[in-house]
Amino acid sequence: MSPQIRVAVAGASGYAGGEVLRLLLGHPDVEVGALTGGSNAGQPLGALQPHLVPLADRVLEPTDAEVLAGHDVVVLGLPHGQSAALAEQLGDETVVIDCGADFRLTDAAAWERFYGGDHAGSWPYGLPELPGQRERLRGARRVAVPGCYPTVSTLTLAPAVAAGLVEPDLVVVAASGTSGAGKAAKPHLLGSEVMGNASAYGVGGVHRHTPEITQNLAGLGGDTPRVSFTPLLVPMSRGILATCSAPLRPGVDAAQAREAYLTAYADEPFVHVLPEGQWPQTQAVLGSNAVHVQVTVDEDAGRLVAVGVVDNLAKGTGGAAVQCLNLALGLDETAGLTTVGLAP
Amino acid sequence: MSPQIRVAVAGASGYAGGEVLRLLLGHPDVEVGALTGGSNAGQPLGALQPHLVPLADRVLEPTDAEVLAGHDVVVLGLPHGQSAALAEQLGDETVVIDCGADFRLTDAAAWERFYGGDHAGSWPYGLPELPGQRERLRGARRVAVPGCYPTVSTLTLAPAVAAGLVEPDLVVVAASGTSGAGKAAKPHLLGSEVMGNASAYGVGGVHRHTPEITQNLAGLGGDTPRVSFTPLLVPMSRGILATCSAPLRPGVDAAQAREAYLTAYADEPFVHVLPEGQWPQTQAVLGSNAVHVQVTVDEDAGRLVAVGVVDNLAKGTGGAAVQCLNLALGLDETAGLTTVGLAP
Amino acid sequence: MSPQIRVAVAGASGYAGGEVLRLLLGHPDVEVGALTGGSNAGQPLGALQPHLVPLADRVLEPTDAEVLAGHDVVVLGLPHGQSAALAEQLGDETVVIDCGADFRLTDAAAWERFYGGDHAGSWPYGLPELPGQRERLRGARRVAVPGCYPTVSTLTLAPAVAAGLVEPDLVVVAASGTSGAGKAAKPHLLGSEVMGNASAYGVGGVHRHTPEITQNLAGLGGDTPRVSFTPLLVPMSRGILATCSAPLRPGVDAAQAREAYLTAYADEPFVHVLPEGQWPQTQAVLGSNAVHVQVTVDEDAGRLVAVGVVDNLAKGTGGAAVQCLNLALGLDETAGLTTVGLAP
Amino acid sequence: MSPQIRVAVAGASGYAGGEVLRLLLGHPDVEVGALTGGSNAGQPLGALQPHLVPLADRVLEPTDAEVLAGHDVVVLGLPHGQSAALAEQLGDETVVIDCGADFRLTDAAAWERFYGGDHAGSWPYGLPELPGQRERLRGARRVAVPGCYPTVSTLTLAPAVAAGLVEPDLVVVAASGTSGAGKAAKPHLLGSEVMGNASAYGVGGVHRHTPEITQNLAGLGGDTPRVSFTPLLVPMSRGILATCSAPLRPGVDAAQAREAYLTAYADEPFVHVLPEGQWPQTQAVLGSNAVHVQVTVDEDAGRLVAVGVVDNLAKGTGGAAVQCLNLALGLDETAGLTTVGLAP
Repeated sequence: MSPQIRVAVAGASGYAGGEVLRLLLGHPDVEVGALTGGSNAGQPLGALQPHLVPLADRVLEPTDAEVLAGHDVVVLGLPHGQSAALAEQLGDETVVIDCGADFRLTDAAAWERFYGGDHAGSWPYGLPELPGQRERLRGARRVAVPGCYPTVSTLTLAPAVAAGLVEPDLVVVAASGTSGAGKAAKPHLLGSEVMGNASAYGVGGVHRHTPEITQNLAGLGGDTPRVSFTPLLVPMSRGILATCSAPLRPGVDAAQAREAYLTAYADEPFVHVLPEGQWPQTQAVLGSNAVHVQVTVDEDAGRLVAVGVVDNLAKGTGGAAVQCLNLALGLDETAGLTTVGLAP
Repeated sequence: MSPQIRVAVAGASGYAGGEVLRLLLGHPDVEVGALTGGSNAGQPLGALQPHLVPLADRVLEPTDAEVLAGHDVVVLGLPHGQSAALAEQLGDETVVIDCGADFRLTDAAAWERFYGGDHAGSWPYGLPELPGQRERLRGARRVAVPGCYPTVSTLTLAPAVAAGLVEPDLVVVAASGTSGAGKAAKPHLLGSEVMGNASAYGVGGVHRHTPEITQNLAGLGGDTPRVSFTPLLVPMSRGILATCSAPLRPGVDAAQAREAYLTAYADEPFVHVLPEGQWPQTQAVLGSNAVHVQVTVDEDAGRLVAVGVVDNLAKGTGGAAVQCLNLALGLDETAGLTTVGLAP
Repeated sequence: MSPQIRVAVAGASGYAGGEVLRLLLGHPDVEVGALTGGSNAGQPLGALQPHLVPLADRVLEPTDAEVLAGHDVVVLGLPHGQSAALAEQLGDETVVIDCGADFRLTDAAAWERFYGGDHAGSWPYGLPELPGQRERLRGARRVAVPGCYPTVSTLTLAPAVAAGLVEPDLVVVAASGTSGAGKAAKPHLLGSEVMGNASAYGVGGVHRHTPEITQNLAGLGGDTPRVSFTPLLVPMSRGILATCSAPLRPGVDAAQAREAYLTAYADEPFVHVLPEGQWPQTQAVLGSNAVHVQVTVDEDAGRLVAVGVVDNLAKGTGGAAVQCLNLALGLDETAGLTTVGLAP
Repeated sequence: MSPQIRVAVAGASGYAGGEVLRLLLGHPDVEVGALTGGSNAGQPLGALQPHLVPLADRVLEPTDAEVLAGHDVVVLGLPHGQSAALAEQLGDETVVIDCGADFRLTDAAAWERFYGGDHAGSWPYGLPELPGQRERLRGARRVAVPGCYPTVSTLTLAPAVAAGLVEPDLVVVAASGTSGAGKAAKPHLLGSEVMGNASAYGVGGVHRHTPEITQNLAGLGGDTPRVSFTPLLVPMSRGILATCSAPLRPGVDAAQAREAYLTAYADEPFVHVLPEGQWPQTQAVLGSNAVHVQVTVDEDAGRLVAVGVVDNLAKGTGGAAVQCLNLALGLDETAGLTTVGLAP
């Protein structure tokens, strides 16, 4: 047996950090190293993440470069804006995988408009299913894990856009569970507020994930797409279901659309085009790194309609981090990611 | 005090019938008459609808014209296709309000395509907020209560369409609670299947509510709209949130859009355009006849985006039935419909 | 028409205050007066309680005696410990109804043990269904509204205790929705934490509602009961289901138990003993002031088992406040409380 | 690598069968053999269990002995009463693990009283954590997997009963998710009925799991216990939280209780006594084979109170089946059961 890869997780008490740890506990080649927290430093992980039984007695250390140094990999699950300073202090001998937004956008103007403050730069973008992207991630020392909405929106639309089946006027309405909003306590995220409730937010193109979706789809060639993105909050902890549509280019039919999706994802280990007539549901991918997609055309409306689902914490965050870790370190891309969804 | 209006409810053990009864119990001018059921005939209502305490000891009678005759009003909460035969046997002295789909569509071809079988005809359509429709409902002896999705989709888009703010290429993605699917037991509607789960169904323009939405919006003038409608099932009992968008006509801005909505609904007792920046949530309208809407424009995407919510059982079915009953009988339109939403 | 009673609500942005307002909007004899808030003062109510449409434009004033003075009734929905000081400044011409815990316990030692700090005293206890209590509440100028758990636990056990059917060793396990914990944002109450999750808390007799339940049942005569109380948090916004049991006294059978419950609640407008074989569910009482109870005996185990449900915000808080307001002011006890539960 | 063990699953489209398959897909020593269904025979598994991606194209065969013959292990996930006839046709060369109730009870009278019909007999009971039971399961050719409620109730009470800390008057109130009721469509299990709802059922000792709990605890020695068992349905798919209590024997204190639990479960791989002050929550064990328990004493009430949680489908059914399979075949008891809970 080869020596285990030592992985530290910064922000281990949050949802992203917890999910990375849940997956790493099932990873055959990894040993969990330092765990750090902000205000939770000093507490045992078991009090904060009671599901992570084998790590229950591990005590959180403060999030600083000294604690994180000396690991093969450091995964950052920090609030947006905190990754850049920390990453700078970790040498190139450490692979750094950032679950935050700091290094996702290549366009500084888009960063400043949607996040404010200075743009820290960009790192290889951790969506291996984009054309050419898997190769860029192999051996990478820095990876920017995509946002959860961009992951599912991009993968649900990419085959149609890349194959030129649609006009680049894209509409995405994505219903998300609440864990995407993180573990910081805010009144509108209380159980009493979200149970029995569906709501829209960030309407009109103002959500921070909009430019990331646009960037991904623009990279597929053709005219720069215009993306109308509306996120919804629905009463579940995990999962995103993205309903995506666009005007059909002349002559495109359902068979052609289906073929484009089947071809695009034929060799992808995690993206599954469902059998004809079967539509995605989030429950089927809970806890797994899977993406389920389906596509059809609405001839009356003249639109292609595609639906995709991911677990926002798994393939949408922690699973993507592990997938990128595998690519960066030359491991089997699916190592630690073979469990299937938890249903019902 | 004038004599009470006697109202019979056919299908009293279902969700539509139960909601009509819940509202009628709070109606100042109404007395509940015969209650009928199909396979549940002979059972006390309390075993089937335990929330309807004052009616707990009432025993369901079989659904037939003899039982329903002699009431001022009969409300039908029956499976699609059963209303026509029954209504024929009820004379014009009885107001018949049908919560089913049988008499909603004016276009026989659309009926046959989406429902199959012969078209029974059409009755005055019970959406008083459509231009001119309130007048048609006053004194009507027959009313077709709109579908739940069409109600919220129509009211969320109507001001934009009527004012010519958008191109008639409309996209509606509507997230619904499960009660819209009724009380018949089907495996995919089990709690275990729907909790923690979001799913899409009827994708690609095949849902039966699509032609009804189109019919409503076509009636506002302008080019016949093309409607891309995608229904979603999300983990809650009640409520629909409809996210609607369309390409902006040149020069239209957010202020103009907002003004169109404020003007359209200025005098409507049940439709509320929320204050700027506040987006609708279904919890705020639970159990009430209210509709909450908000609108904005996304200049980057070149689209108007509007969001609306209703309680599918209240304004989406039973509340609409009572509102139409009030109009048909010349009562105050809001009688029995003054309770506000139940939140949290 | 007699002049309307003017009611001010302190803490109008919280769950208790919001529920009182929801009910007062349907009360025929009441006019809503001043609305106050703590950190939310200055905001329009519509931004905080979007379901209370008719009050959307009302702006919250600061919670102080000056603002609250001059009303017929002041309802306090404040954090525990804040009512006493405020109530002192409101003269006896104002009826004060406190939804907090400050004046519920008569035993200063119990107060100090479970709440800490000085005992403010006790006010007439707002559970009219207790023997003799309705009379004490008629014309009262001060009322302490019971806790939500004590309301349902007391009403579910009282007939058995009062009739001497059981040994005074009572076991209560009560599953509650999350709104009982209030609207203050705490991580363990986030939707992501409570959905798909059931948990126990305050186990071993340490929950503050324990002495209140004991006090209520002790007042029924017989030996002072010993109460084992365990609260559970389950994934719903509203509702408490209390499962209560105690050792049967020799010779007591199911018929005798049922008779005791039927007799005890025969004239109560809000407490309903369900038909034999039908067990309570919280959905049936959502938003209503109803209590549903059922009782049986388990001969093998030698125990009486009773189950009761309430809506913790309605009969468990805001509904009780309105019921007590009615009694205090000599109105019909059910005024404003006639709506039935919202189901499904 | 040794040859894989071939496992057939009868009832693969149900919740028990699906969970067994989910776990077997992660089992290092197992290969999935025949999959059978009742009315679903002929359908691809992907249409019925979309989360089981690697098995999506496998078609269900009819449930009969011919199809199941020739496997090393057959796991039965069938409706109660169907296992006996089928098992008889499978020779002793096949290990049969029954997730149904047919062979759980040793007392024929109890079987007839609670299930009706003839008692089929009893098989080694698949709860290895009971004293001496692990040894009985090693090499067994037939195993009766425990019921979900009995698993958590037994494990939560056993240390207290075995150590004689309590009088044998046990009270169990267990709140369960809906998947325990199976996938057969019944109106009261519809999502619309269970969301936002908590209910009690089988009250008064009539639930079929009562004699199974009693049997387990009677086996620990001491007086035959009397068990008052009340199951609750709460709005979640998976998980059971059991609140258990009993009168303390004189002189027993909290430290002694805690010590008994720590000692009892010191070497158990799946049962975890939480750190002092931390109470179990079902979310922490979702999808895992873990049991979390905590215990305290309530001196005022004179009772020991213990709380335990399991995932009813995992350790409560499918995980127990795999654990027993491991013991029966001489594998590592934890093989295929190492994943931790899915939270949040």
